[in-house]
Amino acid sequence: MGETAEMADRPRSDEDRRAAILEATWQLIAERGFHAVRIADIAKVCGTSTGTVHYYFPGKNDVLTAALKYCVEQAFNRQSVELKAIDNAHERLLKLIDMQVPRVGRVRDEWSIWLQYWAEAVVRPEFRPAHNEFYARWHDAVVRTVRRGVRQGVFRPDADPENVALRLTALTDGAAIQVLTGAPGMTITVMRELLVDFVSRELAAPESVTARG
Amino acid sequence: MGETAEMADRPRSDEDRRAAILEATWQLIAERGFHAVRIADIAKVCGTSTGTVHYYFPGKNDVLTAALKYCVEQAFNRQSVELKAIDNAHERLLKLIDMQVPRVGRVRDEWSIWLQYWAEAVVRPEFRPAHNEFYARWHDAVVRTVRRGVRQGVFRPDADPENVALRLTALTDGAAIQVLTGAPGMTITVMRELLVDFVSRELAAPESVTARG
Repeated sequence: MGETAEMADRPRSDEDRRAAILEATWQLIAERGFHAVRIADIAKVCGTSTGTVHYYFPGKNDVLTAALKYCVEQAFNRQSVELKAIDNAHERLLKLIDMQVPRVGRVRDEWSIWLQYWAEAVVRPEFRPAHNEFYARWHDAVVRTVRRGVRQGVFRPDADPENVALRLTALTDGAAIQVLTGAPGMTITVMRELLVDFVSRELAAPESVTARG
Repeated sequence: MGETAEMADRPRSDEDRRAAILEATWQLIAERGFHAVRIADIAKVCGTSTGTVHYYFPGKNDVLTAALKYCVEQAFNRQSVELKAIDNAHERLLKLIDMQVPRVGRVRDEWSIWLQYWAEAVVRPEFRPAHNEFYARWHDAVVRTVRRGVRQGVFRPDADPENVALRLTALTDGAAIQVLTGAPGMTITVMRELLVDFVSRELAAPESVTARG
């Protein structure tokens, strides 16, 4: 396929090559939008052939789904490292929120991929199963953290983890859209305040020190 | 431009023709997605030429922006008629919420256009001013209704209309995305409950009869 010369500044495994293509792909999609990215653009950025890109991703839909999967996994790994160090569920949830705020850079680019994916999933149902699988990781992270907080006594004993997760994820997505579209009155600071305030109002046990912190 | 024969089952004004093209365009975009719709598809559905479509919308970006503007105006007119008849601001806000729930049909299609628009606006800043202008109509409708409710005494006197509008619009958008992507646990019924519950918790004055209704 002719990629040996272009990609082999060092010997690469199949997995390395796939990862390099994915990294380039999700950045291109995040910057330009799914439909503006051609397989040829991905090949060019990777210094490889379109044949090689097609080898890893047979169709263009595969590219988008793989890009979302890749950025979900990257975010998840990043979160796991950060959250592992935090025992208190209230602080853990605040950290999780902080890590979702679309500040410029990697997190903003990940949000861009989500927005591209939503636009596809609404018109093409074949994108929904993968969406829901990836979305569940984020939803479930909130559910687990709320459960943990109830056990620890830092969240209200009557908190409903599933319902809280539905609302907190919806509020996060909606606020992020306003940040990313530059809606008046919404900034990453305001977004963080809204979400922290949600946790204080809806979850914090009255005696929790961190509650209004 | 050759549209006379095809479009002239009755004499049409320029404005009629533009409206017919817009109606067809936004439905195509809602069903297929912005990037899947070609000017030729619009022309075909309208029984006219691509030249005629280009006459009204010089570029493809103009088509998307005009489609969003059209569906915002349609929704706004529909809401104005319904809301005018309701004096009580609490009932008015519940009606406004009910009219945003993406049940199958026109409202769902309007949501599809918003999702397409967000995906563009995040990667192409030139779409943001129009987005923000249209989004402000919905945001401001919430602000006005909250202010009215405070005046009427059906909402808490300390309610902050701008802050409530930021949160309620974000929650609405995020919940709608979950409905439209088929996220587990989110249905139009659950979405409506979340939003009605938001109004009860955050806004309803303790003495308001409708509050938990």
